[in-house]
Amino acid sequence: MEPHGIPIPIGPLLLAVGCALLGAKILGEIAERAGLPSVLGELLAGVLLGSSVLGLVPLSDGILLLAEIGVIVLLFEVGLETDLPELLRVGGAAAAVALAGMVLPFAGGYGVTRLLGYEQLTAIFVGAAMTATSIGITARVLSEMKALATREGQIILGAAVIDDVLGLVMLAVVGEVARTGKVDAVSAAKATGLALGFLIAAILVGIPLGRRLISVVGWANVRGVLVSAAVAFALLLAWAAGWAGSAPIIGAFAAGLALARTNRRRDIERALKPVVDLFAPIFFIAVGAQVNVRLLNPADPANRPALLLALGLTVIGVAGKFLAGFFAWGGPIRRSFIGAGMVPRGEVGLIFAAMGKSSGALPEGVFVAVVITVFATTFLAPPLLKILRPKAA
Amino acid sequence: MEPHGIPIPIGPLLLAVGCALLGAKILGEIAERAGLPSVLGELLAGVLLGSSVLGLVPLSDGILLLAEIGVIVLLFEVGLETDLPELLRVGGAAAAVALAGMVLPFAGGYGVTRLLGYEQLTAIFVGAAMTATSIGITARVLSEMKALATREGQIILGAAVIDDVLGLVMLAVVGEVARTGKVDAVSAAKATGLALGFLIAAILVGIPLGRRLISVVGWANVRGVLVSAAVAFALLLAWAAGWAGSAPIIGAFAAGLALARTNRRRDIERALKPVVDLFAPIFFIAVGAQVNVRLLNPADPANRPALLLALGLTVIGVAGKFLAGFFAWGGPIRRSFIGAGMVPRGEVGLIFAAMGKSSGALPEGVFVAVVITVFATTFLAPPLLKILRPKAA
Repeated sequence: MEPHGIPIPIGPLLLAVGCALLGAKILGEIAERAGLPSVLGELLAGVLLGSSVLGLVPLSDGILLLAEIGVIVLLFEVGLETDLPELLRVGGAAAAVALAGMVLPFAGGYGVTRLLGYEQLTAIFVGAAMTATSIGITARVLSEMKALATREGQIILGAAVIDDVLGLVMLAVVGEVARTGKVDAVSAAKATGLALGFLIAAILVGIPLGRRLISVVGWANVRGVLVSAAVAFALLLAWAAGWAGSAPIIGAFAAGLALARTNRRRDIERALKPVVDLFAPIFFIAVGAQVNVRLLNPADPANRPALLLALGLTVIGVAGKFLAGFFAWGGPIRRSFIGAGMVPRGEVGLIFAAMGKSSGALPEGVFVAVVITVFATTFLAPPLLKILRPKAA
Repeated sequence: MEPHGIPIPIGPLLLAVGCALLGAKILGEIAERAGLPSVLGELLAGVLLGSSVLGLVPLSDGILLLAEIGVIVLLFEVGLETDLPELLRVGGAAAAVALAGMVLPFAGGYGVTRLLGYEQLTAIFVGAAMTATSIGITARVLSEMKALATREGQIILGAAVIDDVLGLVMLAVVGEVARTGKVDAVSAAKATGLALGFLIAAILVGIPLGRRLISVVGWANVRGVLVSAAVAFALLLAWAAGWAGSAPIIGAFAAGLALARTNRRRDIERALKPVVDLFAPIFFIAVGAQVNVRLLNPADPANRPALLLALGLTVIGVAGKFLAGFFAWGGPIRRSFIGAGMVPRGEVGLIFAAMGKSSGALPEGVFVAVVITVFATTFLAPPLLKILRPKAA
């Protein structure tokens, strides 16, 4: 039945989303049982369900739209889980780790890509993808290890949060570069100004606005008013971010930060959880489905440059973040553990990869190399963390 | 940012969905405070936000897709809230009320439409839209009156559930008629067979399959596995329904009935609630947005036939359901109260209207008349129920 004479055929979408959710959970569960983050399983499920293997999840308009909603609600949730004042308390050490953890991998990724003969724009996207740290993956791995409360855990989390914010700024800068095709200081400064300016303005305006919204919602009795108001707030800030020339996900993240400062934070998180559970996997599935497995075959000489690049990027990606851990100052802390905690790239790295691919800046082989690197760094982090775990944890 | 080079522009959709959610909740709250079901406020919000008034929610591909998802998760939830064995216990009286409540309004709606000179196919759609009873609205109104546990309340609920199932069958029959353009006994019987057959098969296969799924889910640790598995189950049954030539919402409803028979029913309902809270309003908003308010102006002579039809349909719609209450047998029960409880048309009536409009069977004026009738019957039910309430309640 198509009640509205809907132009997007709903049948294939129902099949694709149903398969995507089942595949994401089955492979996510297998990944978790193997001691790996479940997001890896979801990515792998996308690779298997995508058109280069089973073809059950084609990258149709409907799937891409739901994936887009998935990444917006995911970033809204990350914002909600971020505690601004706590972040400011961890302060210096975390900032130093975050900054070093962006500069070193960017330089390394950019250098390796240029060395292998790729264009400057391609190298910028690769470098940018290398800077990301997945706060979701990091927090989940630390929590599974019960190392969140250790000093090292706190610094990792703080650095990952700062990295996330800087990553969003970087995303806007790189997005601007991709749109204009130019890599000039003016456009980069403008994009940085827009991203940072929008984020600061959105937080400054968003906090009182969010409080007012939540107090109005407190008077209402109608079903689902809290979650609807919170999501509407996130969507409208996401829209405003896009309208202001920044990225919608920055708006969604700012909305999360703002609503985290209200007394209904826990209720919003609880109501949002199943929504993120349903939509975020569609994003990871859609990213995985963009990987063409034929490009992974080392027997085909045409694939070797990309595989070589992936190897180089993985070494750089692990080493860059690992060394960043040693920029943490103060006290007898295990800096190698902090570095290991920064290694997983996760969703933000994939957003860079997907954006680079869609804008044409990343040729398919480089896109695959970046996705392999995201996989590899995320695979390597949990065993590294286990080996390097401080005795106190 | 458009990570995947998505062809559907995401910006306008974010604005539209944000406005839709806020508008739905504001007008829903006002409706509830006025003692009316909040769904009326959501429909009205759609009328105001739609292109004939404010134009903030255009009927884009993205909105229609989300509306479609909204009605699918809504019917899944209705299925989850339906208790098959309890329904069978209320038995005879409820079935008699339901059947009379379909035959009388169908005959009345068909007759009035034909009398006013419309085509047979149009009259069939109008008649079908008149047969619906909104289980959601009915249950919500009864629960607000604390009359759910009375004998009358039980019969109303049972009849509304049966009506919902029969309405789904009717939907398939009418859908088949709309597709083939013919009103012959063979195609009607085939559609009835398909709808009933699919529903019975889906329930028979769905109950053990759902139990197996829930027991597998019980072993899993990964985040969000229960809600993902439940929604995947609903989407795949919805897809199967469409594939089998029935309606996707029948599949979603059957999935709900099947999962209602598992021990995780409450957990699924709890996780599904915010998802329905976010998506069902988009369906009601999209339906409301299809109303062209210029057609409601009685000063324009061109509008008078539709307004006359709306008046006739409202009288027929209330009288038909009201009389159906007197078909309830056994014991000293207030049959007028039962009849009043059957009056609200709600979402199923709107689905018929939207389907009739998109298939071309309902000219715009008739579509508006049916939507006005749905509004009017839903407005009239709560005061009628208050006046006719049995002393015991």
